[in-house]
Amino acid sequence: MKRIRIITKQKQEYIDITEIIRDYAKEEFKDSSGIVTLFVPHTTSGVFINEGYDNDVVKDINKVLNRIVEKIPFDHIEGNSDAHSKSVLTGNSIQVIVENGELMLGRWQSIFFAEFDGPRERELWIKAIKD
Amino acid sequence: MKRIRIITKQKQEYIDITEIIRDYAKEEFKDSSGIVTLFVPHTTSGVFINEGYDNDVVKDINKVLNRIVEKIPFDHIEGNSDAHSKSVLTGNSIQVIVENGELMLGRWQSIFFAEFDGPRERELWIKAIKD
Amino acid sequence: MKRIRIITKQKQEYIDITEIIRDYAKEEFKDSSGIVTLFVPHTTSGVFINEGYDNDVVKDINKVLNRIVEKIPFDHIEGNSDAHSKSVLTGNSIQVIVENGELMLGRWQSIFFAEFDGPRERELWIKAIKD
Repeated sequence: MKRIRIITKQKQEYIDITEIIRDYAKEEFKDSSGIVTLFVPHTTSGVFINEGYDNDVVKDINKVLNRIVEKIPFDHIEGNSDAHSKSVLTGNSIQVIVENGELMLGRWQSIFFAEFDGPRERELWIKAIKD
Repeated sequence: MKRIRIITKQKQEYIDITEIIRDYAKEEFKDSSGIVTLFVPHTTSGVFINEGYDNDVVKDINKVLNRIVEKIPFDHIEGNSDAHSKSVLTGNSIQVIVENGELMLGRWQSIFFAEFDGPRERELWIKAIKD
Repeated sequence: MKRIRIITKQKQEYIDITEIIRDYAKEEFKDSSGIVTLFVPHTTSGVFINEGYDNDVVKDINKVLNRIVEKIPFDHIEGNSDAHSKSVLTGNSIQVIVENGELMLGRWQSIFFAEFDGPRERELWIKAIKD
């Protein structure tokens, strides 16, 4: 298992980690194939795949997530239940196929680490399962 | 990795792909066991598992997803941020257990490929990891 | 594949199953490493990871899910499309990394089985994939 360190600077932030994962896959798999699992060990963060070409897409996804938690009378005393809920809705683990060392993503896909209650020092855990 | 071609005909469409995945598992695993990963390489599509017996269930899930993105002032110039957001909320990869070549699903479960910005020509990528 | 039996007693219930999964990982992996896949074979249940320390977090997540499905005119005759939708939004499978028999979770993370249309007798399916 490999740990990647991620520093977020804003309250809500989406960081494109595609190249980090692509490099990991090349180094770890070389010419072999399998699956990479990405796991977020935090409860106010998430990881998901979507369009990374136009930055407005991620901003729009953020608007949707903000709308979902708007004006809900939360009980949790730390005041960040909006962030916990967004973490559940986006999910905290994904799998990506690797073929001959190449991370298999669609043309418009990027992998995003999302922090919903930053700024924070975070980790992303990566695990390779080979054929 | 196997690529399956999926043609959608409507703007929003949910296609039951259970039998395709079941056949793939039988052929690929034979008498062996493991995990099948399904991966959608598009950013306005998703894949999920839910009831496939009464078609109204999927129509109702579609109503929920439409409500979530209703009247949000999106910035993305292509005008399909509703579809990108739904893709993130449903997710674009799932895992299903295979035992002795049999795809292990609950009695009422079907696997759906969802397109939120069709009609489109799409692919679903499948990867088998054996014990 | 191992089947775990879960009995829910309320309409909506979140059961912390972390220790069950931790024990399973220790027994199944011993000193080896890999990935554990958890799969819910039901269509009104889900499985997710979030904070398990303050019980208010899960209650707040429940509020968010209830708000999402509020006042939607559902068609499905059984009247539980709210629960089907919540199952899709939380997801019905997750992966957790195992290192030397230890289930790798972040400090505040717990694994929850969620039933959205109980009370019910349920199962959770677990599958180990070793390195």
